[in-house]
Amino acid sequence: MTQITRRNLLNMIGTVAGGTAMYHAMAAMGHAAPSSYTGPPKLDGDPQGTKVLILGAGLAGMTAALEMRAAGYEVEILEFREKAGGRCWTLRSGDEFTGLGEKKQTVDFAEGNYINPGPWRIPHHHYAVLDYCRRLNVPLEVFVQQNFNSYLHRSDAYDGKPQRLREIETDYRGHITELLAKAVDQDKLDELVTPEDREMLLESLRSYGVLDDQNEYVKSLQTSEYRGFDRRPGGGVDGAPIASDPMDPQQIIKSGLWAHLSTHYSLQHQAPMFQPVGGMDGIAKGFEREVGDLITYHAKVVSLQQDDEGVTVTWEDTQGGGQRTSTADWCVCTIPFSILGQIDHNLSGDLATVVDTMYYNGSVKWGLEFKRRFWEQDEHIYGGVSYTDQAISEISYPSTGYHSEGPGVLLGGYTWRGANSFKFNAMSPEDRIKVALDQGAKIHPQYHDEFKTGVTVSWHKVPWVLGCGGVWENRDQYPGAVEIDNRVVCAGEHLSYLPAWQEGAILSSLDAISRLHDKVING
Amino acid sequence: MTQITRRNLLNMIGTVAGGTAMYHAMAAMGHAAPSSYTGPPKLDGDPQGTKVLILGAGLAGMTAALEMRAAGYEVEILEFREKAGGRCWTLRSGDEFTGLGEKKQTVDFAEGNYINPGPWRIPHHHYAVLDYCRRLNVPLEVFVQQNFNSYLHRSDAYDGKPQRLREIETDYRGHITELLAKAVDQDKLDELVTPEDREMLLESLRSYGVLDDQNEYVKSLQTSEYRGFDRRPGGGVDGAPIASDPMDPQQIIKSGLWAHLSTHYSLQHQAPMFQPVGGMDGIAKGFEREVGDLITYHAKVVSLQQDDEGVTVTWEDTQGGGQRTSTADWCVCTIPFSILGQIDHNLSGDLATVVDTMYYNGSVKWGLEFKRRFWEQDEHIYGGVSYTDQAISEISYPSTGYHSEGPGVLLGGYTWRGANSFKFNAMSPEDRIKVALDQGAKIHPQYHDEFKTGVTVSWHKVPWVLGCGGVWENRDQYPGAVEIDNRVVCAGEHLSYLPAWQEGAILSSLDAISRLHDKVING
Repeated sequence: MTQITRRNLLNMIGTVAGGTAMYHAMAAMGHAAPSSYTGPPKLDGDPQGTKVLILGAGLAGMTAALEMRAAGYEVEILEFREKAGGRCWTLRSGDEFTGLGEKKQTVDFAEGNYINPGPWRIPHHHYAVLDYCRRLNVPLEVFVQQNFNSYLHRSDAYDGKPQRLREIETDYRGHITELLAKAVDQDKLDELVTPEDREMLLESLRSYGVLDDQNEYVKSLQTSEYRGFDRRPGGGVDGAPIASDPMDPQQIIKSGLWAHLSTHYSLQHQAPMFQPVGGMDGIAKGFEREVGDLITYHAKVVSLQQDDEGVTVTWEDTQGGGQRTSTADWCVCTIPFSILGQIDHNLSGDLATVVDTMYYNGSVKWGLEFKRRFWEQDEHIYGGVSYTDQAISEISYPSTGYHSEGPGVLLGGYTWRGANSFKFNAMSPEDRIKVALDQGAKIHPQYHDEFKTGVTVSWHKVPWVLGCGGVWENRDQYPGAVEIDNRVVCAGEHLSYLPAWQEGAILSSLDAISRLHDKVING
Repeated sequence: MTQITRRNLLNMIGTVAGGTAMYHAMAAMGHAAPSSYTGPPKLDGDPQGTKVLILGAGLAGMTAALEMRAAGYEVEILEFREKAGGRCWTLRSGDEFTGLGEKKQTVDFAEGNYINPGPWRIPHHHYAVLDYCRRLNVPLEVFVQQNFNSYLHRSDAYDGKPQRLREIETDYRGHITELLAKAVDQDKLDELVTPEDREMLLESLRSYGVLDDQNEYVKSLQTSEYRGFDRRPGGGVDGAPIASDPMDPQQIIKSGLWAHLSTHYSLQHQAPMFQPVGGMDGIAKGFEREVGDLITYHAKVVSLQQDDEGVTVTWEDTQGGGQRTSTADWCVCTIPFSILGQIDHNLSGDLATVVDTMYYNGSVKWGLEFKRRFWEQDEHIYGGVSYTDQAISEISYPSTGYHSEGPGVLLGGYTWRGANSFKFNAMSPEDRIKVALDQGAKIHPQYHDEFKTGVTVSWHKVPWVLGCGGVWENRDQYPGAVEIDNRVVCAGEHLSYLPAWQEGAILSSLDAISRLHDKVING
């Protein structure tokens, strides 16, 4: 009897049906990981000229517009700002930004330099964002997250002297694997480790932790091959490398710097990560190329009313065009709830409650331009992130334009929620930059000499969103909030399990319009 | 009394002297890591028209030519091939390669696709290579080495089913930290861990290993945030994520797949790594733009003779120009010893012994072009490396052109020394490609259906080097081999502690010409 093996089956499927069928077969057999995004939604059935009004031309709104127009809907988008993208935003020379109650900042970067105040990086598994980048011809480049040559810094550790990640990472791993190896070796773990696993476990620890034959993590050329040398291997007469001393294990444990190690291995930060070439708003522009003709800019929504027949939205033309009205059969509302809650609406149920009560995280970012890329030139740091226990939290170096001779822009700080965000939010942009420079100088003494210009955005003061992402204290009312409320469905990062990520905005939108379309077609 | 603090001192130095002085001060104070490369050599003093003959226009030879001409020497370079770069080499559509005793291969890749048969990536601390890229305007992009979505594969583990790196990495780290935490928690390590370190150590293990409050590595949304979810967090109705099951610890230990984890954390592979945009030979071309006018191509050296007065090199014009002679006061010889050993020479001492006895590592690489980038489209692998215990050893995905719709080229295998290199070396290119396809198909079932064309290089059969790097069994004769032998100094990766790396070739060359120059000027 002929047996069809798994491999043969795959080959047969592959031959007959091509790659996509192969992939689905692979996924079904557990060979490829399933993704919650498997391509744009199939909105089958003719909506027969049904009109949908989309509020907000951020990623959620433009995704909805792109897919619903393709499915045959009449689409109108209202957008408060002068351009599309929402939080997917890039600041370049000449751009202006005025936070609530703040003086206007005019960006004065050198030509070609930029900062993304909002979304900063794209994880490798944000399949929807990546696929829209592909479909919209948005070229991507690698965003360097983990850089073994970047710094870890705590004011109270190592006399405030920043440590290279490669040393902390290698030594911490070495010391804890040595500790475990000793415990195993001294038969202290016999009840936890079977005799047959013992040798293989020790072998794995020697490999993983770079231990020697005695299961010890010691000064050696071998460990220096991971943590760095005192004198690096070179050429010619003085080419022989000199090993470096591992750091004291107790000091590492006490330093707390290990707290920054696992970050790089989380799904949201593990390699590789990506960014659009030229600025995050490359994604916004990609969508705008497709649906820009549907967008009315400078449209400030003041009222959203619905009944059984349709939706009526009143909006103000902020360029002096007075009050206007748009109507439609249905509405996809992507206005952040921090704003929507202040707008006159007749939404109902859990949705209305969430709209009125959801609060938004604050986050503060800085784009600091320096006269030269001293982090590359002096310290050999090409991209990546240095972490500190100071309020600025981190410094992220540009993942592009390596070796450029002119001025360079880095992310001078990134606070995420909590006291630091509130503290910086309360400061003027000028003071905020001053503090970021003082704190950054603890890591890079070149800071004050090399500083050229800066811009800072506190998201709680960004007029069109008042925060950087919606917060769910618990998810009790989430099911109600994502439901279609009569004629309106809401979408955006705040209605996802990926809050403050672009992927969440797109996935939320795709889910919302799929359900809306089903209701339009099937009632 | 006023104390000058370290910081103040740095600021003072920075203000007065600018960045470079600042850097040297930082290095002296231990703030920045010292590098064995600190810029091009200062070849002070006038060589007064002294002529140097350079053999070989690889990176060592061209570095010597660039710096010595700048220092005032008359420079002539002889190169066997029709172009410069040596092992810094890129194959593109239309390129031909004929290995010794092999049929000619003509590369048939799609326009824009390429493979680097030699140097493959640039570590972040190869300061000399990076600095020459900067000076020669060779644009760099990130080379993705570690990709958490790539595969680890062993034929005898998990029924031969490839595992994602993120799962093995996360689960291995989780399980061993749990084991250590249990040992600490159960007071088994009291003699190794002081009571005061105990709690901090446990806290660090919970952070590093993603353990729960009971110090256990378990199925949870938290661990799934590292290893991946069964259902990823999404948007709208079904947005809630579903946690995934960690793998069995004993199976991971037995699988041996942990052997590939620490590779990514070694200095030579840790993030970030780089590659020239458009192919590794961008570096060769950068040098060639500067010193191409000094190079005589198609020049096969047949004799290298020196006496107290100078150097006489006899060479054959391989384009039919007959035998020719070049003379000079001095010679920098970068011809690989695998070739030099077969050339008539009158070198002496340890150098002569090493020239005649050094053997070269073999290495085999494949550039395989497929009809589409199925690794991106089907499996969401953007760059990085999958490892296997099969003879091909690894598959490396392109770190550029993400999302391109056309055919894509990956590195279909990379053997390094040992039996696999010898085995593949003995095969015809056709057979070598066939085997690489069969083995690669164990990891990517799409291989056979999607294959378009391929090229393979076995370095032992590359006529102009006969190997990929010189091997030192021990370094006893190294000091003698790097010495200036009367009128000749040798240079190249084989005379460095970074064998087979471009950095070794450049550093060796810089060291050699610095000493040669000193001898010319000071006798």
